[in-house]
Amino acid sequence: MSSTSSVSETPTLSQSHSGIPSRLLHKAQTAKALIQELRTEPGSTDHPQLPIIPQGISRSHFHSAISELSTQLGQDNVSVIDKPPKDDGWYMEHATTHDMMSVVPKHEFMASAIVYPASTAEVQTIVVWANNHSIPIFPISMGRNLGYGGAAPRVRGSVVIDLGRRMNKILDIDSEDYTCLLEPGVSFYALYEEVQRRGYKHMWIDTPDLGGGSVVGNTLDRGVGYTPYGDHWAAHSGLEVVLPTGEVIRTGMGALPGSNTWQTFPYGFGPYSDGLFSQSNFGIVTKMGMTLMPAPPDHESFMYTFEREDDLAQIIEIIRPLRIGNILENVAQLRSAVQTLAVSGRPKSDFYKGSGRIPKAVVEAECANLPIGKCEWIYYGMSYGPKHIRQYKLDIIDAEFKKVSGARRIDPATIPKDNYFWSRDKIAAGEPDLEELLWCNWVPNGSHIAFSPVSPIRGKDATALLDITNKHQDCQGVEIFPAFVVGLREMHLIVECVFDKHSPSACEAALASMRGMVDDAAKLGYGEYRTHLALMDQVAGTYNWNDNALIKFHERLKDALDPKGILAPGKSGVWPSRYRGRGWEMGDGKETTEGEGVANGVLGGKL
Amino acid sequence: MSSTSSVSETPTLSQSHSGIPSRLLHKAQTAKALIQELRTEPGSTDHPQLPIIPQGISRSHFHSAISELSTQLGQDNVSVIDKPPKDDGWYMEHATTHDMMSVVPKHEFMASAIVYPASTAEVQTIVVWANNHSIPIFPISMGRNLGYGGAAPRVRGSVVIDLGRRMNKILDIDSEDYTCLLEPGVSFYALYEEVQRRGYKHMWIDTPDLGGGSVVGNTLDRGVGYTPYGDHWAAHSGLEVVLPTGEVIRTGMGALPGSNTWQTFPYGFGPYSDGLFSQSNFGIVTKMGMTLMPAPPDHESFMYTFEREDDLAQIIEIIRPLRIGNILENVAQLRSAVQTLAVSGRPKSDFYKGSGRIPKAVVEAECANLPIGKCEWIYYGMSYGPKHIRQYKLDIIDAEFKKVSGARRIDPATIPKDNYFWSRDKIAAGEPDLEELLWCNWVPNGSHIAFSPVSPIRGKDATALLDITNKHQDCQGVEIFPAFVVGLREMHLIVECVFDKHSPSACEAALASMRGMVDDAAKLGYGEYRTHLALMDQVAGTYNWNDNALIKFHERLKDALDPKGILAPGKSGVWPSRYRGRGWEMGDGKETTEGEGVANGVLGGKL
Repeated sequence: MSSTSSVSETPTLSQSHSGIPSRLLHKAQTAKALIQELRTEPGSTDHPQLPIIPQGISRSHFHSAISELSTQLGQDNVSVIDKPPKDDGWYMEHATTHDMMSVVPKHEFMASAIVYPASTAEVQTIVVWANNHSIPIFPISMGRNLGYGGAAPRVRGSVVIDLGRRMNKILDIDSEDYTCLLEPGVSFYALYEEVQRRGYKHMWIDTPDLGGGSVVGNTLDRGVGYTPYGDHWAAHSGLEVVLPTGEVIRTGMGALPGSNTWQTFPYGFGPYSDGLFSQSNFGIVTKMGMTLMPAPPDHESFMYTFEREDDLAQIIEIIRPLRIGNILENVAQLRSAVQTLAVSGRPKSDFYKGSGRIPKAVVEAECANLPIGKCEWIYYGMSYGPKHIRQYKLDIIDAEFKKVSGARRIDPATIPKDNYFWSRDKIAAGEPDLEELLWCNWVPNGSHIAFSPVSPIRGKDATALLDITNKHQDCQGVEIFPAFVVGLREMHLIVECVFDKHSPSACEAALASMRGMVDDAAKLGYGEYRTHLALMDQVAGTYNWNDNALIKFHERLKDALDPKGILAPGKSGVWPSRYRGRGWEMGDGKETTEGEGVANGVLGGKL
Repeated sequence: MSSTSSVSETPTLSQSHSGIPSRLLHKAQTAKALIQELRTEPGSTDHPQLPIIPQGISRSHFHSAISELSTQLGQDNVSVIDKPPKDDGWYMEHATTHDMMSVVPKHEFMASAIVYPASTAEVQTIVVWANNHSIPIFPISMGRNLGYGGAAPRVRGSVVIDLGRRMNKILDIDSEDYTCLLEPGVSFYALYEEVQRRGYKHMWIDTPDLGGGSVVGNTLDRGVGYTPYGDHWAAHSGLEVVLPTGEVIRTGMGALPGSNTWQTFPYGFGPYSDGLFSQSNFGIVTKMGMTLMPAPPDHESFMYTFEREDDLAQIIEIIRPLRIGNILENVAQLRSAVQTLAVSGRPKSDFYKGSGRIPKAVVEAECANLPIGKCEWIYYGMSYGPKHIRQYKLDIIDAEFKKVSGARRIDPATIPKDNYFWSRDKIAAGEPDLEELLWCNWVPNGSHIAFSPVSPIRGKDATALLDITNKHQDCQGVEIFPAFVVGLREMHLIVECVFDKHSPSACEAALASMRGMVDDAAKLGYGEYRTHLALMDQVAGTYNWNDNALIKFHERLKDALDPKGILAPGKSGVWPSRYRGRGWEMGDGKETTEGEGVANGVLGGKL
């Protein structure tokens, strides 16, 4: 339980805990090497009859339809999922996975097949095929939406379209406009590496906590990063989209033939439709423009620690004006000490063998041995610009944070080079990293799922949300890491719940805690900005002002754009007409019978 | 022709030139006083039979429908337009106007009636009424979209919904979140004044060139301003919208009952629909959230002049990295010398009595007498922050601009207080102004219409667009003022064409030059970001990639949301099904016969 963790040591990760070799986490400079390694992991489990057939059609019709698609796209590019997923490690192959960090029984979000288009035209082919056969399809960019459902489809038996495997080209990087044009398979790592390869030292990308995912996918899910360009959706410019009926549109200036400003001016002329294709099932994005950030003349990370849990309200009140006033220039991160302990990569059992929450005294004692010292909250930030301009901002920040009794600035010069601080330093300077995942080792077979409510940047809101979080943590006995993340005028509390995915009771507790937190938050006016597949209906259901007016509006759009209801039904809680009112909400996880009719409404059970 | 213009004099404006008293332009601190004055202007002209009845219904049906609406909303709030517009001045009353700066024959964009709802519920009432009677309605916020159609409806005979007259409340200003919630009738002036009245010195608004218009209206038309918050659409957060079938939705976090983040987090959960309601006819926005800017510690305007027309390419190349790198912190404005001459408020005839373009030599000689001195281009900018940080940026700017041979920085201390420079200074610090309109005096009965293409920030693009502009100026003999306006990664060339609206040939020439410029620009890949009613079909028609895929997509949305096709048909080139393919494109301006059927496609002429 006591720790002698030398911060210069490579953390000792057990394969049985995470399946991810520590040397890779610390040494891999590219996502490619990591992914390669992970794809070779062994292991399998028992599973219900496979492939799981989409409801509403017969097994024979399904196989004949798949055969037709194979003819159109080539045998190698259509793969029926007739083997159970490999899931001993935390990462599983696309071809057989539902959610690599599944919190629900494995068959809940299981695909029937996976297809790999090579072009926009082939995506059109798949969409037309799906309409012809009334087979639900579910596009993924790279399937690495960890904590929110990974590569899994919302409706089981859907055919997953893995856009990323073959559509992974960086179509353009413009070093004068600071823009790029990407296919869905381009990861943050791949984009970063290409920018480096071309020697564009004057240009930064923005990366989220984990750099292995798709730039397009993260942006469409409205993810954030940690440079001043952190709002990815706001930073995109121009989409190419295959509509659910097969037509291809280009948004913004891309609709003008020969346009030279598709990636530089997002709005175009007339209705601005891009938002419709984020967090939605209204189209399949096959190309996306993205803006890149001019590298600042210089930059430096800083870290503050705060001693008491109930310093929270005061810290948040200090952050608000500094962040809105751009003195804090990147997304503000205030993390709990326990998360910083966990991100060392060591399991909870190293520190504490009891049940329930790790005692505060233990966390404090452990932290005392780390560069952060004894504390409850840690602020990670970065200042940009030349020295004297940084100093102007850092002096203000220092004066403000030091108003909190016991606040300390940790001198970066005293922090060992393999400390997590330097992972955040990389990310805040636009260099992808994966170290964040180390806290999955906190429990055996560690997986995670996130509760991500949006709130005002107010002390009282932070306290109210933390209370909700603590209540459900204690009630369900789950392991959670809260981090307050300030975008600009709003705060996201990102609560990562870490659970042993091989333990049904741990999965159930994790999901129950999520459901409880979503409900309790909604009662106080807080809604989630993003959520896991399993929670989409519940979260969408909280956005129900005026008798569900917005949901009905989205349903009207859905029915107009996707009359057959084939594209990602249920994504973000938007169901096409043929699925509506038929108990598709996530429920007890009971099996359904093959071929049961969607059309006649006879569903064997809730999804 | 020679000028002894003393810059400290109030410019001498003739009422017959603009109708706008110069003392108001220079002294009015509020839009209220100006509007009050303008509403009293005298004058009338002959006009065809009024009211103009919407096509497809009979005159008796129309009057009975209006009577029904009057009963619902009150007699005072429904006004049939049965008198010709007052148009001796440049500004006309809402109740009888089409476009206060009309470039087409007056009846082209003429409303049949105008209604003044007081609430969202009354807007719903109007929408339901319009559906019941198949009468086209056209919402305006305040109708001050000068240069783009003003208060006029796209389809003549439409009933204009003047949202602004009675729905003009500032519903909230949050001085900690730096946000506000507005109804459509709140002008930039009104918002600015309320912020001042509350003593919120720490908060700035952002205002476009003319401060008299609606914040909501300008933002929905994706207008821009001149502080670092210049992109109004990007700065908004949350809409309340009445759909064309009468339902009310709230977007973003507003869809969550009791939400506390409607104005602080724009995206909400699921598909992000806000963009659909910009430059569109998919809904009527009745409330909008807007973010406000923290006042910087200090700020200072600066001005550079450049000697030769063909310095343009070099200047633009210099601007690009400075703007993208945020060294130039607000929307970059590079204006022609002739526009700066005109904004003195004196007519062209003061300087030059000949026909065609004012000779360069004359412009140069006149400029030599002004603080700008002899020059062809003028850059107006502002630097923000404390002194030493401004100096860092200003030194970079100075070194870069001085690379252009003959570039001069004009010391603000040498510029008289009533010079236009100080109007730009106000605007770049978020204080509304109207002085910009003075260049309408350039010709008698001066009106203006804008050509607003988007291009890369490249010297060659600036040159190509200027060539197009010059070609059509010479060809049509029109008066134009080009200004290059750099948003961030894109450049808008805003070409203001000033014409005598009482001269049919001048109107025709202005419109012909616009049409020619739009076509020529499209051939080179440039599209407009915004346009006048009269040009909407033409501009939308240039966004025709892949067999008009985006237009068809918008039509599909339109038909789903507005099956009766009553809401602003034709706005931004989006026509509902009952109008499509029936020659509604702007054409020869021929009269149509009352009551001609839309339903059976028998239209007496093109619009």
